[in-house]
Amino acid sequence: MLVIGENINASTKSVAEAINRRDGEFLGSLARAEVTAGVDFIDVNTGTGSGSPEQEIATMEWLVEVVQGVTDKPLVIDSESPHIIEAALRKYHGMSPIINSVNAEPERLTSIGSLAVEHHAWLVALAMGTKGIPDNVEQRLATCDQIVEQLTRLGLSEERILFDPLVLPIAVDSTQGLVTLKTIEQIKSRYPNARTIMGLSNVSYGLPNRKLINQTFLAMATYAGLDAAILNPFDAKTMSFIKTANMLTGKDPMCKEYIRAHRKGILTG
Amino acid sequence: MLVIGENINASTKSVAEAINRRDGEFLGSLARAEVTAGVDFIDVNTGTGSGSPEQEIATMEWLVEVVQGVTDKPLVIDSESPHIIEAALRKYHGMSPIINSVNAEPERLTSIGSLAVEHHAWLVALAMGTKGIPDNVEQRLATCDQIVEQLTRLGLSEERILFDPLVLPIAVDSTQGLVTLKTIEQIKSRYPNARTIMGLSNVSYGLPNRKLINQTFLAMATYAGLDAAILNPFDAKTMSFIKTANMLTGKDPMCKEYIRAHRKGILTG
Repeated sequence: MLVIGENINASTKSVAEAINRRDGEFLGSLARAEVTAGVDFIDVNTGTGSGSPEQEIATMEWLVEVVQGVTDKPLVIDSESPHIIEAALRKYHGMSPIINSVNAEPERLTSIGSLAVEHHAWLVALAMGTKGIPDNVEQRLATCDQIVEQLTRLGLSEERILFDPLVLPIAVDSTQGLVTLKTIEQIKSRYPNARTIMGLSNVSYGLPNRKLINQTFLAMATYAGLDAAILNPFDAKTMSFIKTANMLTGKDPMCKEYIRAHRKGILTG
Repeated sequence: MLVIGENINASTKSVAEAINRRDGEFLGSLARAEVTAGVDFIDVNTGTGSGSPEQEIATMEWLVEVVQGVTDKPLVIDSESPHIIEAALRKYHGMSPIINSVNAEPERLTSIGSLAVEHHAWLVALAMGTKGIPDNVEQRLATCDQIVEQLTRLGLSEERILFDPLVLPIAVDSTQGLVTLKTIEQIKSRYPNARTIMGLSNVSYGLPNRKLINQTFLAMATYAGLDAAILNPFDAKTMSFIKTANMLTGKDPMCKEYIRAHRKGILTG
């Protein structure tokens, strides 16, 4: 399981404030702490609406420089705006980054898909169109078909796509856990070279003991074929579940990673 | 998920001692505590080799009476010996019990399978023959085929069978988690009317943080199609995982059971 650290995101107040005051020390420390916690990628999101387009671009360029100044872990460029994504990719150097994200909306698919081709990036593609998140597996897969078709035409191969099956709150509709899990399974069987990615927390929205729900869902999703998760790597229990789920699905030969984590004292639960 | 309480088992020293001194109060309290903790069935196992065949039969008859004296939850009659099982079934009254267990060994299948037919019991069938536990899905399924064929001939229908896919320690062979999970899936698709059942703890044998492993595996197995688990219902975290896994797989409409458990304060993790 690839772990993508979600922490450098302007939706968190302390991060937004650090970005506003250009506090590279705070944000660099946060990035280093994510690396220490075991992330494979670092998501960077500067938020939207904080200034003119030029200012927003300058902010993302600055943030990419700050994070790349302290670690060579690859980044996830997380933005609504193709212009911000483009600027970040130009500033970026090192291992292929991930762009987060597109959906089946044709115009964004073309503009951001072309950037992924040009910059040899992976691309997160949400299994939804312009009309919102379909409530069933078939329509989510139909959306993935449209995305693959258009991206292939642009020259982005299946291997460069990370599909997000999307998850709706189980509190709203008790079938939605299975819809997401079956969507992961179907994507893996339909596009064996593509990867799957998911944020965990939406499933538990509106319910108590959210971590318990997120962790249980993570175990199930790992078995269903999830390849990458966007999460808070400072949650030791979630990281323990990932090590354990990897081991139980045959991704940790001889249980070496699991035992190493135990010896470091970082397995909890 | 059906929860089968594993506690009344003579392999636990305090239980063996209580059985030896015919301490019905201790064992009755244990049974009541299992019911309070939320079990659907209570497993009763008097162990073996503690006396003459007649004494062992008398012990099981006594234990069935003790437990049925304090609860009307159905029992799982857990014994190696067809004679002990038969005596227990004659003493037993109430909702259909479960017999634990047979494997593909023809003689036991005939004797114990016939008892299940006669007493309208469910029957746990281990996916193994006389040569031990197969290390792959195909051979476990072939064993299930043999079992179904022979039991059907005796008059025990598919619905009365609870298949145990069996799990080998992941520390010994890192592919064994997936072998068990895929076996569950295949059994459910091959015998849609049969149920699946499993004890959890074997998977984590020889590793540290065993509960973390067992709980993660339980979540995966629930998604794979596990219908019943034999476990310690006094472990609040395991029971929390079961409630959560049920909810995430669509078995708890409107999340009512989950929220009820939360209000009772019994969700942990």
